[in-house]
Amino acid sequence: MDVQRTADLGFARLDLDRAERTGTPEVVYAAGKTPAQTVACLAALLEGGASPAWATRVDDVTAGAILQRWPEAVVDVDARCAFVGDLPAPVGDVLVLTAGTSDGPVAAEVAATLAASGVGCTRVDDVGVAGVHRVLAVAPDVAAADAVVVVAGMDGALPSVVAGLTDRLVVAVPTSVGYGAAFEGLAALLTMLTACAPGVLVVNIDNGFGAGVAAARIARSAQR
Amino acid sequence: MDVQRTADLGFARLDLDRAERTGTPEVVYAAGKTPAQTVACLAALLEGGASPAWATRVDDVTAGAILQRWPEAVVDVDARCAFVGDLPAPVGDVLVLTAGTSDGPVAAEVAATLAASGVGCTRVDDVGVAGVHRVLAVAPDVAAADAVVVVAGMDGALPSVVAGLTDRLVVAVPTSVGYGAAFEGLAALLTMLTACAPGVLVVNIDNGFGAGVAAARIARSAQR
Amino acid sequence: MDVQRTADLGFARLDLDRAERTGTPEVVYAAGKTPAQTVACLAALLEGGASPAWATRVDDVTAGAILQRWPEAVVDVDARCAFVGDLPAPVGDVLVLTAGTSDGPVAAEVAATLAASGVGCTRVDDVGVAGVHRVLAVAPDVAAADAVVVVAGMDGALPSVVAGLTDRLVVAVPTSVGYGAAFEGLAALLTMLTACAPGVLVVNIDNGFGAGVAAARIARSAQR
Amino acid sequence: MDVQRTADLGFARLDLDRAERTGTPEVVYAAGKTPAQTVACLAALLEGGASPAWATRVDDVTAGAILQRWPEAVVDVDARCAFVGDLPAPVGDVLVLTAGTSDGPVAAEVAATLAASGVGCTRVDDVGVAGVHRVLAVAPDVAAADAVVVVAGMDGALPSVVAGLTDRLVVAVPTSVGYGAAFEGLAALLTMLTACAPGVLVVNIDNGFGAGVAAARIARSAQR
Amino acid sequence: MDVQRTADLGFARLDLDRAERTGTPEVVYAAGKTPAQTVACLAALLEGGASPAWATRVDDVTAGAILQRWPEAVVDVDARCAFVGDLPAPVGDVLVLTAGTSDGPVAAEVAATLAASGVGCTRVDDVGVAGVHRVLAVAPDVAAADAVVVVAGMDGALPSVVAGLTDRLVVAVPTSVGYGAAFEGLAALLTMLTACAPGVLVVNIDNGFGAGVAAARIARSAQR
Amino acid sequence: MDVQRTADLGFARLDLDRAERTGTPEVVYAAGKTPAQTVACLAALLEGGASPAWATRVDDVTAGAILQRWPEAVVDVDARCAFVGDLPAPVGDVLVLTAGTSDGPVAAEVAATLAASGVGCTRVDDVGVAGVHRVLAVAPDVAAADAVVVVAGMDGALPSVVAGLTDRLVVAVPTSVGYGAAFEGLAALLTMLTACAPGVLVVNIDNGFGAGVAAARIARSAQR
Amino acid sequence: MDVQRTADLGFARLDLDRAERTGTPEVVYAAGKTPAQTVACLAALLEGGASPAWATRVDDVTAGAILQRWPEAVVDVDARCAFVGDLPAPVGDVLVLTAGTSDGPVAAEVAATLAASGVGCTRVDDVGVAGVHRVLAVAPDVAAADAVVVVAGMDGALPSVVAGLTDRLVVAVPTSVGYGAAFEGLAALLTMLTACAPGVLVVNIDNGFGAGVAAARIARSAQR
Amino acid sequence: MDVQRTADLGFARLDLDRAERTGTPEVVYAAGKTPAQTVACLAALLEGGASPAWATRVDDVTAGAILQRWPEAVVDVDARCAFVGDLPAPVGDVLVLTAGTSDGPVAAEVAATLAASGVGCTRVDDVGVAGVHRVLAVAPDVAAADAVVVVAGMDGALPSVVAGLTDRLVVAVPTSVGYGAAFEGLAALLTMLTACAPGVLVVNIDNGFGAGVAAARIARSAQR
Repeated sequence: MDVQRTADLGFARLDLDRAERTGTPEVVYAAGKTPAQTVACLAALLEGGASPAWATRVDDVTAGAILQRWPEAVVDVDARCAFVGDLPAPVGDVLVLTAGTSDGPVAAEVAATLAASGVGCTRVDDVGVAGVHRVLAVAPDVAAADAVVVVAGMDGALPSVVAGLTDRLVVAVPTSVGYGAAFEGLAALLTMLTACAPGVLVVNIDNGFGAGVAAARIARSAQR
Repeated sequence: MDVQRTADLGFARLDLDRAERTGTPEVVYAAGKTPAQTVACLAALLEGGASPAWATRVDDVTAGAILQRWPEAVVDVDARCAFVGDLPAPVGDVLVLTAGTSDGPVAAEVAATLAASGVGCTRVDDVGVAGVHRVLAVAPDVAAADAVVVVAGMDGALPSVVAGLTDRLVVAVPTSVGYGAAFEGLAALLTMLTACAPGVLVVNIDNGFGAGVAAARIARSAQR
Repeated sequence: MDVQRTADLGFARLDLDRAERTGTPEVVYAAGKTPAQTVACLAALLEGGASPAWATRVDDVTAGAILQRWPEAVVDVDARCAFVGDLPAPVGDVLVLTAGTSDGPVAAEVAATLAASGVGCTRVDDVGVAGVHRVLAVAPDVAAADAVVVVAGMDGALPSVVAGLTDRLVVAVPTSVGYGAAFEGLAALLTMLTACAPGVLVVNIDNGFGAGVAAARIARSAQR
Repeated sequence: MDVQRTADLGFARLDLDRAERTGTPEVVYAAGKTPAQTVACLAALLEGGASPAWATRVDDVTAGAILQRWPEAVVDVDARCAFVGDLPAPVGDVLVLTAGTSDGPVAAEVAATLAASGVGCTRVDDVGVAGVHRVLAVAPDVAAADAVVVVAGMDGALPSVVAGLTDRLVVAVPTSVGYGAAFEGLAALLTMLTACAPGVLVVNIDNGFGAGVAAARIARSAQR
Repeated sequence: MDVQRTADLGFARLDLDRAERTGTPEVVYAAGKTPAQTVACLAALLEGGASPAWATRVDDVTAGAILQRWPEAVVDVDARCAFVGDLPAPVGDVLVLTAGTSDGPVAAEVAATLAASGVGCTRVDDVGVAGVHRVLAVAPDVAAADAVVVVAGMDGALPSVVAGLTDRLVVAVPTSVGYGAAFEGLAALLTMLTACAPGVLVVNIDNGFGAGVAAARIARSAQR
Repeated sequence: MDVQRTADLGFARLDLDRAERTGTPEVVYAAGKTPAQTVACLAALLEGGASPAWATRVDDVTAGAILQRWPEAVVDVDARCAFVGDLPAPVGDVLVLTAGTSDGPVAAEVAATLAASGVGCTRVDDVGVAGVHRVLAVAPDVAAADAVVVVAGMDGALPSVVAGLTDRLVVAVPTSVGYGAAFEGLAALLTMLTACAPGVLVVNIDNGFGAGVAAARIARSAQR
Repeated sequence: MDVQRTADLGFARLDLDRAERTGTPEVVYAAGKTPAQTVACLAALLEGGASPAWATRVDDVTAGAILQRWPEAVVDVDARCAFVGDLPAPVGDVLVLTAGTSDGPVAAEVAATLAASGVGCTRVDDVGVAGVHRVLAVAPDVAAADAVVVVAGMDGALPSVVAGLTDRLVVAVPTSVGYGAAFEGLAALLTMLTACAPGVLVVNIDNGFGAGVAAARIARSAQR
Repeated sequence: MDVQRTADLGFARLDLDRAERTGTPEVVYAAGKTPAQTVACLAALLEGGASPAWATRVDDVTAGAILQRWPEAVVDVDARCAFVGDLPAPVGDVLVLTAGTSDGPVAAEVAATLAASGVGCTRVDDVGVAGVHRVLAVAPDVAAADAVVVVAGMDGALPSVVAGLTDRLVVAVPTSVGYGAAFEGLAALLTMLTACAPGVLVVNIDNGFGAGVAAARIARSAQR
């Protein structure tokens, strides 16, 4: 491993060569940071060459602080993401499905991550298995995609059905949507981990960022 | 409530009028009883008028003890059930689906319970959602049934899909089939409780008896 | 399966033929939707022929938005449900019991669901097993009902006792009422799943809607 | 606190004055001890003045070792207890109820503990709430007792009902009887902890010894 | 069982003869009830003969509503309890220990329950086992009491130590005090259930009321 | 979706066109099936065109039955897999790492799955993070691979470290290796789901088959 | 044990000789205490000879009350600690590492505890294993320290890697940082308990105080 | 970090310089390895300079294989450890306490680890808090020790009490001893993590090896 550059801000030590090493730059996780800390991290990443510099889990106050510093920044409110710098031109296509409307914010984080990673994205929302014809209706979209991300809360059953239809990898994102025995996403998580169809890979509950990074790598690999 | 007859065996106090009161007789749960205790219970139930007298969770030793006492008894090895006395003629029809072959013993307990309850039964096994065309293929069977029992382990996704196809009630039985994050049936249980389609009602893990009793009541009600 | 109509709103794809297919229309789950999204869904369902169009988990702001659009809408504050269009005339009768006063909102959702499903409903509240004579006192109501819904938090013991008194199906709804080892409804859920009396079928914690749909199907079947 | 005598066996340090201090002698928990260790402990307790010396969770091999050393010892096979020395004459009366036959071994441990503690015991088995008339039938026994111990697995609902009938304290013992969502006694434990009737006190799953000790103290107190 | 009187308020069915039957009157659990509902329940209990009528888990708004209706009511702010009517003269003595200051509100509920039950109470707070001499210092208080209630959060270790010092019954109340692996009282609950000293009986997390009722029964029994 | 061929064996309905549809044939999960059932499934798959037909979780008895029927079958004892028919020539390369020797059987299942899927495999075992130089030493292997599968029990920390070194996707397989707070693989599962490095995708505990299928798809995509 | 002094404030019994006995004075846990109670405790500790008297989990209101009483008090806002009296001169050195910026407040509590315990502290933040070169870069700091405290949320993998590099003891503090399957620190806790490298010792989630006390004892021991 | 030597056995890559790096050599965890694998690992470690080479979790078959290869090896049956080569002369002293006799095997693993690490050990068994005078009686041993290891199952309360008596660090080892709500050591683990006394550090359930390594480091540090 070559020497790696680090930007030391005291409260944070930013990994400036992560994009070169892993294909994904260090991204600022704004939850648990003050707005000033997030801004400082973005500034250091920009200085280190990031394009765009990028933060997730951005609340309104932090978004305001970012826009004050960089009026040209793009804030995606649904996805709670902010970008400073130009987004790359997209290649390939990832299909992002949600099981219900309430899963939308997580799907938006997937889409924003794909955009920042330079990968195209098609979203189709509310494809719940309670109307399985809706799933069958997206089969052509599935066939046309480089990878499929399925975002679902409650019973989390959608990835099992989709994975049975395709040779594409299915990145499954359980969400905390639901109540009672959904146990803040635990039910959907366990469903996806025990999916009876192979080809389903799982990320953390509500982790749209992680799903987006993974799907982008698959799509870029397929486009090479 | 009228005076209720009880057969007091010391270690057990059998509820002889339960069939009259609830439509389902007291059934001997042989797990946790000695073979001699199970035989004594069956004898008391027969004397109290049960027809058939009936035990569940019967292992080989207990089955042998029952057959020694009542050579004409019927032992259903798959279902681990034993019956002494004639089964009633069946009315109606309940469709029993399994998601996989390994769910078979629980489905067999459902079927045996239906038989002892005087209700007809159609079984279709291995209808997993990983091949959703298999689910769609049983739609005519679903439409023809008085109720549907769905037996599934692992991701437990099948009831959600079936319930979206029909106005029949779906009695969902999670099974302990699976490993790892299936957590002995917990994953399937949570999936079924959070099913996105209404009309799904859930019983305990591996509880084929309870599902059979419930489905029998629905079927008999529909036949009245 | 015939071709199914879908209303595509982008953020939602409404399943317009669900009532025909399953006996229960698509109902708008307002939690996790903006008021504008809920209103748009109701409008699309009305246009698709729903009568009534119907939303659950409606908070005050969403209720206001609905009433602004449809001043004739009916909002059931206890049940957090809203209906646009006429409710059908009720047939049959479902008995809805609660173990305590705090279980009232969930029971109200059951009752509202029954009303929208065209099934009659009798409610008796606060029938806790700590005064078992109160349970025995409702035995005549149980005998007169087509089905019984039991709503209970804390120890969740009421369904076991009721199911031992009747041949009616008992739809058990655990609630999140209680503290400490009630674990937000988990204690009641496990109690109901392991009920020693057969004939108990369980839905998700606080899921009055699901219990109402199931009980309505039983009652309509009995009335045919 | 006066100086306390200890018998130091190396692998064990026996608390010889515990009976004087707490009313209950140190009792040998044979699980996790070799037969030789259990025998050595009993011998040291006898030498220290115990009458009887007493072990719980005794398996067959250990029971044989005890009987070889003290042929006059009493081994209660159901309760898995062994006693060396005379049992005291009983005073008072504790009612021990079980919800089902499978709860019998735990109830036997309660009864053996009461006997060794010099307290009388009445057992009534299989008083499940699925036939609530059986519970009402034991009301006179409840009224005549100094305390009630209720032993139940599965849904664990019996203590709630019993406690609503009486001013006696109810010591509730959840058992590991049941399968699936009974989760080795967890369901019954949570039910008992959240019992809607006050006056229910809970011990560990399958802990007949602890329940017996507590009930004995209540009974002796009432007899003073 | 004689005919039992019930006050039917629609949303509640009050069990007016519970005091006669169980020694403890029906007490109003104000959590989950509106202030108006709590007042109505208290009024009905007073009319039914309760003295005092009594509510637990009373917040400030409900306390205000009670005082407006009955200016002579006594509100115990620490215990979140309200009483309308005279408290009985106390007999006997129960020692209430806390492991830390933060356990105080639960101990206050125990004390209020004892007062309303006509039993005397001595409180000693902050007797944590991290300074075991503080535990030894209360040994004389323990010896003088009819029963001991131990209230503890975090590690919940105090009941084990106290029970090893005395022949009094120890009623253990786990509290939700603590953070992290205390898991809202779960750690203390499990500790108390597995206490290595017999004579420990456990109630629900934060359930000062239940502990008070149980201790009162023990104390009254000892005073007879 | 074109019409799909199904082989109906009664106890199983084999999905003969799954390979065409999803790139992975139906594979026989031998756990929960009798040896005769597994043999019958393999025979039907062969007849349906599978090459090879393939079973996982094969115990010794089942392996014997397979070899008796097809003496030319290949049984991989470490992986508990059996193959009937020729394996395809491998393309590409997947690196399979284990954190410890005890994770070997799961890694063997990954490797067998890759072989049957026609993808090459390099295994390096015992690369635990307790000697992080061992991880750094495999960096060249990581860089040369099309995808990386990381198999780890206990703390499950290896995928986080590997994913920080590479732009390859990391398929993480938690194993049930470990004791105590490893909770049968739960600790490793949660670690992997919350990995601080993106690019980690998780499958069920001990699910070498699922990881192999996913890695094969990535590798084949990269080879196109 | 010599006679121990106690300051009895009614709501608290302060253990004045704890520092002499255990090397660490009684410290006021302000969570769950009123500001007035915290101030009274600090006053009593000062009177008992503490220097400094010290409180943890101090919120803004309590901090204000402390500063009003003792204007010279030092409040560490990040650490939520307050000190009245002089801090001892530091000896030795403990290295405190965090895996991410969000773990900062817990690390601050460690540092404050070390300062109050008279032990020096070096902090390096944001040393996540996703850039393992950052971990290797602190190896010289590790080698120079008397002990290492590692504070980490999410996957909690850092202690495993650090412990493999050094013969210093690693005190691991899981934090509640993270979402979804981090389960409020449970994931990190389990990871640390199952760390594959020996030499890792674990404290409660977010327990910076406990980690600081332990590390201080190690450092002071090494300095003797 | 200097270049590290690794012995590559294919199934294992042994970290030969771990002792130099961390003070503790790589130790063979025999669970999950075949006897031949364990022997091969020991041989490679010996060749790499280990003295002694050492394995834990050794069952009888593996012990036999070791003794066949190295007749002079020492097998500690209680501790399930085997050593090939001379043990170092002990320095310092660690006190190892158990709460009960059944915790003995874990304490034996602690003691064996200390011996192999060249640290002296004093064991006192069966010091349960139910007889707190037994704890006070070991206070002189605690004061004389360099560190204390406390091994306890069931309620796990002993470390809290010991830590309140001493300025020595307490390494707490929860064990899987107990039944029911002990949940295989979970109860003791949570108790220890939430211990109200600081100075308690926790290792995994039944992890005598990890506790021994940590205590040895503390003792050696104190002896320098």
